[in-house]
Amino acid sequence: MIKTSHPTTVGRGPADHEMRNQIVTAATEHFSRYGYEKTTVSDLAKEIGFSKAYIYKFFESKQAIGEMICANCLSDIESEVRAAVAQVERPPEKLRRMFKVIVESSLRLFSQDRKLYEIATSAAAERWQSTVVYEERLQALLRDVLQEGRQTGDFERKTPLDETAAAIHLVMRPYLNPLILQHSLDYANEAPAQLSSLVLRSLSP
Amino acid sequence: MIKTSHPTTVGRGPADHEMRNQIVTAATEHFSRYGYEKTTVSDLAKEIGFSKAYIYKFFESKQAIGEMICANCLSDIESEVRAAVAQVERPPEKLRRMFKVIVESSLRLFSQDRKLYEIATSAAAERWQSTVVYEERLQALLRDVLQEGRQTGDFERKTPLDETAAAIHLVMRPYLNPLILQHSLDYANEAPAQLSSLVLRSLSP
Repeated sequence: MIKTSHPTTVGRGPADHEMRNQIVTAATEHFSRYGYEKTTVSDLAKEIGFSKAYIYKFFESKQAIGEMICANCLSDIESEVRAAVAQVERPPEKLRRMFKVIVESSLRLFSQDRKLYEIATSAAAERWQSTVVYEERLQALLRDVLQEGRQTGDFERKTPLDETAAAIHLVMRPYLNPLILQHSLDYANEAPAQLSSLVLRSLSP
Repeated sequence: MIKTSHPTTVGRGPADHEMRNQIVTAATEHFSRYGYEKTTVSDLAKEIGFSKAYIYKFFESKQAIGEMICANCLSDIESEVRAAVAQVERPPEKLRRMFKVIVESSLRLFSQDRKLYEIATSAAAERWQSTVVYEERLQALLRDVLQEGRQTGDFERKTPLDETAAAIHLVMRPYLNPLILQHSLDYANEAPAQLSSLVLRSLSP
């Protein structure tokens, strides 16, 4: 692996930032056509028209590029979920939206772009930082909705918040994690409504 | 694939039954040492000391042998779950036991016999008959427990039974299906208690 002598100073300036984006854009297209696993950094370099060494100035490995693409995809899903939750007032409806949009957005990624989904499964299997951050952020959003529902009196307050949040996260997890989602496609249509109804019954004061 | 002229008459007599068992026992040992995917029917025939054609008189394919082994494993898990549920009186405790023993037994299979677990994952991926039957039987058991709890007054009766049963099955599914279970190992310790508490809160009258 080729590294510059001052890796921390690379990719910080505006020109570097643009260069990184250019690599990520080209890589996204290349991966979505040929698949992530099969592509090497040499293939990418050839495609973009730079040397392999030059790409390594910006990303230390293929995984680092995949991480960036994956982080972008997951951040898109997160934005959609946040937007859907913000559109409604009552905490129970917010929770329903969370389940619905998590499943819908993840499935869209799965069906529209099978080759990019491959990156997400690698990411989940190897627990890349981007997937850990994604799960943590959605857990934080869940917690906010739960806390709000406790304040409005929509949700019970007897169970410790940590316990409630952890259990609901376990219920959501099969639809957050692309490795599991691919084995749950048969249930993906009914799951959001059925599971959110069950969870809301469990939260009733 | 070699078949006898009257396949339906094969494997029915007591001697045939014994022969089938002998093949299954030898195959279980062979698979658990060398793995299911890597073993061919020729390997098995060599190991048992019969011709390939003779094995094909009893099983029409390697998968048919795998099906039998898988059905045996799943039926062991089912028996353990049923026994655990029968040991306690109250429906809420029965439900807790179901979650607990499903996860424990499946994990035992997973950790003790990694090579046999491979059969279970093939079975789940290809939806072999044995896994479909297994899921249906556990769903029937769940339904019985729910119905009993509705009669004793432990569980609410407003939600249609079908809906309750389907939703709880969705919550259990990640721990019933070996393909999903292998991606849930980090949560397997706390999941049974956390999920059954959530489900019981959702069932409270």
